[in-house]
Amino acid sequence: MSATLNRFGESKTPGKTAGVSPLDGIFSPKSVAVVGVTNTPGTVPFDIFYNILSAGYRGTVYPVAPGKRSIAAVKAYRYVVDIEDDVDLAVIVFPADVVDRALQQCGQKGIRAVIVISAGFREVGPEGAKREERLKNICADYGISLIGPNCLGAINTDPKVQLNASFARKMPLAGRIAFLSQSGALCTAVLDYARDKQIGFSKFVSFGNKAGVTEVELIEYLHQDTSTDAILLYLEEIREGRRLIDAARRVTHGPGAKPILAIKSGRTIQGAAAAASHTGSLAGEDAVCDEIFREAGILRVTSIEELFNAAILYAYQPMPAGERLGIVTNAGGPGVMATDAAIREGLLVPRLEESTRAKLKATLPATANTKNPVDVIGDARADRYMAALEAVLDDPNVDQGLVILTPQSMTDIEAIARGVCQIARGATKPIACSFMGATDVAPGIHLLQSANIPHYILPEWGCAAMAAVQEIRRWRQQPLDHPEPLPVDQAAARAVIDRAEEGYLSEDQALAVLSAYGLPVPANHVARTANEAVAAADRIGYPVVLRVVSPGIVHKSEVKGVVLNVGDASAVRRAYDEILSRVAAAAPEAEVRGVLVRRMIPAGHEVILGAKRDPAFGPVLMFGLGGVFVELLKDVTFGLAPIGPASATRMIEHVKAFRLLQGARGGEPADVAGIRDCLRRVGQLVSDFERIAELDVNPLIAGPSRIGNTVADVRIRLGAGGNGESE
Amino acid sequence: MSATLNRFGESKTPGKTAGVSPLDGIFSPKSVAVVGVTNTPGTVPFDIFYNILSAGYRGTVYPVAPGKRSIAAVKAYRYVVDIEDDVDLAVIVFPADVVDRALQQCGQKGIRAVIVISAGFREVGPEGAKREERLKNICADYGISLIGPNCLGAINTDPKVQLNASFARKMPLAGRIAFLSQSGALCTAVLDYARDKQIGFSKFVSFGNKAGVTEVELIEYLHQDTSTDAILLYLEEIREGRRLIDAARRVTHGPGAKPILAIKSGRTIQGAAAAASHTGSLAGEDAVCDEIFREAGILRVTSIEELFNAAILYAYQPMPAGERLGIVTNAGGPGVMATDAAIREGLLVPRLEESTRAKLKATLPATANTKNPVDVIGDARADRYMAALEAVLDDPNVDQGLVILTPQSMTDIEAIARGVCQIARGATKPIACSFMGATDVAPGIHLLQSANIPHYILPEWGCAAMAAVQEIRRWRQQPLDHPEPLPVDQAAARAVIDRAEEGYLSEDQALAVLSAYGLPVPANHVARTANEAVAAADRIGYPVVLRVVSPGIVHKSEVKGVVLNVGDASAVRRAYDEILSRVAAAAPEAEVRGVLVRRMIPAGHEVILGAKRDPAFGPVLMFGLGGVFVELLKDVTFGLAPIGPASATRMIEHVKAFRLLQGARGGEPADVAGIRDCLRRVGQLVSDFERIAELDVNPLIAGPSRIGNTVADVRIRLGAGGNGESE
Repeated sequence: MSATLNRFGESKTPGKTAGVSPLDGIFSPKSVAVVGVTNTPGTVPFDIFYNILSAGYRGTVYPVAPGKRSIAAVKAYRYVVDIEDDVDLAVIVFPADVVDRALQQCGQKGIRAVIVISAGFREVGPEGAKREERLKNICADYGISLIGPNCLGAINTDPKVQLNASFARKMPLAGRIAFLSQSGALCTAVLDYARDKQIGFSKFVSFGNKAGVTEVELIEYLHQDTSTDAILLYLEEIREGRRLIDAARRVTHGPGAKPILAIKSGRTIQGAAAAASHTGSLAGEDAVCDEIFREAGILRVTSIEELFNAAILYAYQPMPAGERLGIVTNAGGPGVMATDAAIREGLLVPRLEESTRAKLKATLPATANTKNPVDVIGDARADRYMAALEAVLDDPNVDQGLVILTPQSMTDIEAIARGVCQIARGATKPIACSFMGATDVAPGIHLLQSANIPHYILPEWGCAAMAAVQEIRRWRQQPLDHPEPLPVDQAAARAVIDRAEEGYLSEDQALAVLSAYGLPVPANHVARTANEAVAAADRIGYPVVLRVVSPGIVHKSEVKGVVLNVGDASAVRRAYDEILSRVAAAAPEAEVRGVLVRRMIPAGHEVILGAKRDPAFGPVLMFGLGGVFVELLKDVTFGLAPIGPASATRMIEHVKAFRLLQGARGGEPADVAGIRDCLRRVGQLVSDFERIAELDVNPLIAGPSRIGNTVADVRIRLGAGGNGESE
Repeated sequence: MSATLNRFGESKTPGKTAGVSPLDGIFSPKSVAVVGVTNTPGTVPFDIFYNILSAGYRGTVYPVAPGKRSIAAVKAYRYVVDIEDDVDLAVIVFPADVVDRALQQCGQKGIRAVIVISAGFREVGPEGAKREERLKNICADYGISLIGPNCLGAINTDPKVQLNASFARKMPLAGRIAFLSQSGALCTAVLDYARDKQIGFSKFVSFGNKAGVTEVELIEYLHQDTSTDAILLYLEEIREGRRLIDAARRVTHGPGAKPILAIKSGRTIQGAAAAASHTGSLAGEDAVCDEIFREAGILRVTSIEELFNAAILYAYQPMPAGERLGIVTNAGGPGVMATDAAIREGLLVPRLEESTRAKLKATLPATANTKNPVDVIGDARADRYMAALEAVLDDPNVDQGLVILTPQSMTDIEAIARGVCQIARGATKPIACSFMGATDVAPGIHLLQSANIPHYILPEWGCAAMAAVQEIRRWRQQPLDHPEPLPVDQAAARAVIDRAEEGYLSEDQALAVLSAYGLPVPANHVARTANEAVAAADRIGYPVVLRVVSPGIVHKSEVKGVVLNVGDASAVRRAYDEILSRVAAAAPEAEVRGVLVRRMIPAGHEVILGAKRDPAFGPVLMFGLGGVFVELLKDVTFGLAPIGPASATRMIEHVKAFRLLQGARGGEPADVAGIRDCLRRVGQLVSDFERIAELDVNPLIAGPSRIGNTVADVRIRLGAGGNGESE
């Protein structure tokens, strides 16, 4: 995968030219100073300088090494300010405690791009965090773009630059994939792994503690980078989730879109704790991250194998028109396993046209299987493989091909590989291969990889990679969702919220806020006397529900503060008195502000609309069906607030219990459009008011369209602030 | 992994010596005839002969090649009967249409072990199936153990035998893993894959169409085989599921237990169809197979990678005492990813003792992380790795160790590998490694593999392998479940079933059958008049339920043939008449035999007990919670009937909704022991009566222990037969 262009001799990225970016200084400097070099090979300070020197850098590199005359025979400078020429990039390798002084000097020298390799900052505790703050301040003072600290460095394989400003052992091959990693050490493994598979890179960056430049600026830069087709990202910590999502949507969708494939580690509580002690970060909820990444077009995977498996297919093969996979194999078993994997991954294994099968029958022996997966039989040689592959790719039901080979004694592995390469050169459909084994198949694999045909040791991995490309395709085809604001009475909501103290709103306040935002709140009134309650019930219409209103009581039914289905005036009077006396007994210290009388809600499905603030992503919405579904099965979906109609629809449709809302168990279908509207309004509300720390409409009773939805209960918790400070 | 003993110099298998088995002729023949050899290298007939000759076979090999004087300079025979010496094994490579004659001659010659390599049998359709039947008959006539047809052959690496009776390119390394495969072509890939990882084999068999010897005899043979520690199985088709399960339980549990790891392909409908067109087999339901394998101690995996990843760890490392994993890494990111993977796979990543952390702090630099995962930092060399690994393995909270390495420029990869090998030699806890990358780490990996230290390119795979070993450990620790029969009135059930015709039993018949088997059937009576119904209700006690009894009506509520909660005599009379008139209107053609009056069942959880006949496994039980859980969420478990108490408990506890039965949503806990009893009785019933094609207790109302469970509805469908033929 070493070519800089795909096998059509063209870049996947339409002919954009990169504008001037602050990151040009990092990736394409005309001159580099390595600050803090020593003369000891095998140490980071020496290796970085020597890597730049020996990788064929097209600019000029200056070692800054106080007290040394030269480093590796190159004239050294005492301080960066002593360099007589302009310097575009400084790479600082001094110990942590003197990095700030070196950075200051870089600023004075007019250097606007700096990589700090040195560790010993935020990742080592409060002392290091202070050091890191000092670096940030210096960068702000001088307008420096900073990569690091605590990183491996950056690599640009562009033949016009050829910069290996890292302590990676070897310069990677040039290619069309960019790799960004928060972990420096992982990079060395990735580079070694990739070289073995002939996978090349356009840019390769370890961004470490991201005190300056973050993954957000990097993906935006790579979006413009004409030598990059796909962006791979390893993240341990999301600090500015909202910015990342906004950037990812711009990068992965629309003209010049590039896929972002990401590993976000710390998926489990223990993993997150390990990441925290490694990066000093605070983790949000992993399930939230999973879904929000998907809504931003970021394809989340769990291992570097998956990351590259998908990327090489995307970057070097044409985009397939659909999910339909044609398989050619010389072994039945692996054909079956590939079929299983394809279906499991969401691909289709279509029936072939009769004409295709006729073609296959004409060229293959009688014992061959001409159904998909096509089995050319163990003793097949290149001619049979080529005939079968051509026929399968020509079939209009096939969008992509997978060639599986097992090394029988008569299998001419290299000839078959060459045959596949030849067919691929003329094909408009993507081809992937799985030459199963290791040593025997190695020469064939090498040929395939040299020709940019993605190869997978297991056919299952090829299927997973093809499924990932389908996700990219589908993401691009669906329109981006824009959360246009709906008309709401923000002032009315503000009037309630600004007056309220920290903690839970009372039920009438919460209902007033929801009402202001257009949620279907049932008619209600807070009565202070039994007479008032009766009057309200008469006005609202029977049957009604009576519920105690008390700021101290969050769970009303626990203190028996609720009476349902109250049918007439005398029953209202009785219920009013009962509630007051029961609450007085159960919670004598609670301040009772009255009893809320509201319409009894017709039967329907219980759904839950929730909102909370995620440490990484800010206001996040949750949707689920009430009862066992949320509590027992954790059958919930998440989305970013505010939310557009498409994403809201996705949240609703992706719960496992969705078919219940469609009327799966014999009921009338629920008013899903109405639920979507409610979700959007909740999203808008929590986005408009930062003071809302937590909101739960639980349940919203979802009735059929002719009845609609009704808020049956709500809790809104406010954070500190109030008195006009909010929003 | 080439040693024949583990790293303690001992076999994992207690010192059993193999008895005489019919399969000894296959694996350890003193003489072999290859029947149908040609003189053309690169063809199967020649390659097989030449493989035996050149792999160093310790016996005598005779080519049978009509019309040839010699093959590869070895004297050839016209017919097998012409060989003047005794022949233990014949390998037939003739074209399909003459194999029967060759086999007949083998029988006449007194050969009792035959491998038929040739394809063109059952897998090519009816004509081939007929040919295969002829082979079976000849084998039966002569008492021949037959491997194949349509296979790659068999290999025994035992230095005293050294037989490569296959057309695999190379003889595999000797080792302690046996590999059995239904797919011949897959074998060649597996051999190539394994050689690259230095994985050795004890026996290697491709059993193809299994016309004679099946996987069942093979695993039983390998159970006794002192050179085999673990059995790997690739299966496309299960023909005698019950025998396989019985054998697997014997092999995987108790003294001399060996794990069986299996790929059963054809998991998806499409995959199964591909397998069917490949093997001509009929597939059972995949979810059933999944669970039944687990209950037989067969560890089901999906790829050859997983198969070997787990096997090498089991075969060459000590059995760990528990799930607790200590991780040593020079890279934080992979440490986090490994932690995520470990937790996801069900391992634990424990806190280390303070004394361990003190030891680590004393030897590691200040920036190192002494919490688990222990980060020795990117510039670690062998001394640091060894100190950390020793400290972690010594920690009493750690059951096994994982060493992760990324190749930094100063990482002394081979020295670290040697250090790990040295520690492993003295360790009683298993160690696995992940040296991440490819080329740079290759020499280190080679050293590890030579010393039987399992190596995984990704730490995630190491974690998955360790989790698989935990499954093996847990399986062995739990007692094997024996489905002892419960006391039932079989005669009473037989009286009903023998009299009944094919199709559904009427409700009173079905209830009588369940009642005979001790299921909690509510008191009931089939009334033919309203008066009779009232008398029955008076006797049973109110409230009662009335339900139409009609053989033609399966769904009673659809014809409004059910009235619930009938409170007194006049209501019974009314309900009786209503049912008759409504059913007459809705299903005028249905024969109405009366109205069943039964006790109204108190509220409880709806659970479903089902039974059906799986084509591969025979009578199979299903359990689930009623309503959305089965219908919408497919939240069901399966088990083999008859079922013992432990398996029945597992079936109940493994549904996702189990916590509901425990009282998760505020209810009283259900009588789970009673449900288990019901499941066992249903299992016994469907095992005793083969005519029961399908049985559904739907629902059983599961109340709290003080009330117990009640059968609320049941359907039993009988197959043809009847009149005493059953059982």
